[in-house]
Amino acid sequence: MSGRFITLEGSEGAGKSTNLEVVCKTLVQAGIDVYRTREPGGTPLAEALRKLLLAEWDETVDGVAELLLMFAARRQHLVNEIEPRLAAGQWVVCDRFTDATFAYQGYGRGLPLSYIEALESWVQESRRPDLSLYLDLDPKIGRARIADRVQDRLEREELMFFEAVRQGYLARAREQSHMHVIDASVPLAEVSAAVAGVVQTFVASQT
Amino acid sequence: MSGRFITLEGSEGAGKSTNLEVVCKTLVQAGIDVYRTREPGGTPLAEALRKLLLAEWDETVDGVAELLLMFAARRQHLVNEIEPRLAAGQWVVCDRFTDATFAYQGYGRGLPLSYIEALESWVQESRRPDLSLYLDLDPKIGRARIADRVQDRLEREELMFFEAVRQGYLARAREQSHMHVIDASVPLAEVSAAVAGVVQTFVASQT
Repeated sequence: MSGRFITLEGSEGAGKSTNLEVVCKTLVQAGIDVYRTREPGGTPLAEALRKLLLAEWDETVDGVAELLLMFAARRQHLVNEIEPRLAAGQWVVCDRFTDATFAYQGYGRGLPLSYIEALESWVQESRRPDLSLYLDLDPKIGRARIADRVQDRLEREELMFFEAVRQGYLARAREQSHMHVIDASVPLAEVSAAVAGVVQTFVASQT
Repeated sequence: MSGRFITLEGSEGAGKSTNLEVVCKTLVQAGIDVYRTREPGGTPLAEALRKLLLAEWDETVDGVAELLLMFAARRQHLVNEIEPRLAAGQWVVCDRFTDATFAYQGYGRGLPLSYIEALESWVQESRRPDLSLYLDLDPKIGRARIADRVQDRLEREELMFFEAVRQGYLARAREQSHMHVIDASVPLAEVSAAVAGVVQTFVASQT
């Protein structure tokens, strides 16, 4: 039986790293063979693209170029890692995927959603996440939580950008049945309990 | 008055480097301010993408990913270099542009031309070359001419690939009025004389 594809989404400071662990542990405890990966990245070329995407440049990085780079990295990741593993029965847990592209490049940067929809179908063909958990948090709280971290090019955006990203995720969640919104404003232990609960329910529904 | 955008296309061994010089010299002799550049490349990020595109990887470089990387580099090049220079009245001479993407990724790799047409309109908006010279050569002759050069990932393709690329260029030339086909099988001095003639005629038509 082919594996399932689970993605975790969330803005800065929402507890994404901790809860990626929670997702993977919950699956392992259910006896599932799990492969954990991240976007952009996941193959040598895609990781090289990640470095270019997060670097600071002496030129403006245009939104359309950024969008195409995200999907180029995604295509390598899907074709060379995600698809073969799913076909072999492994479950793949990915730190961010196309819902992030809709939120950041679509709602955040204001690029036409029609471009993203077309790229999604060229790059992913019929592949979509079976389950996506979105850790929802007011960006003001998120920014305060990560104030002491070194930030990359995308993390240094203005608060208004992250408000738009959040509205993008919430709009996607209303339309996309694979997306579950988790309130990430409560203490981390409660967030993790909610994440584990959603994953356990999903596993039970698949067997 | 805004500048003109001239591109030079041609397969390996067709004499592209020499004839880029011929195009630029012919323009300079006509008193035109010329900026010479190349694709993929032309800005720091686009040149970094060029390196990734031409490198050898321990993974298959998927055709769709390659296509998106080409257009990501092109967007940076257009927005940050080509458009501002044209607006300032400089003429831009570019070693390869989107006709190459149609030929290599479309006809060579067999990617849907509809993808390339969509990307062309998102990335370039209304910008198209005002003149493109295609140096046409049987790939068997071209390969023999470059046999002693160090070849990159794209140059190491099979002969059948380059036959398809050539047919792609010729198909484009039949449809696109900006494209001029130059016979590159004759001695280089004759090719250069033909190139200079087309450029002189074009310059005369613009003033």
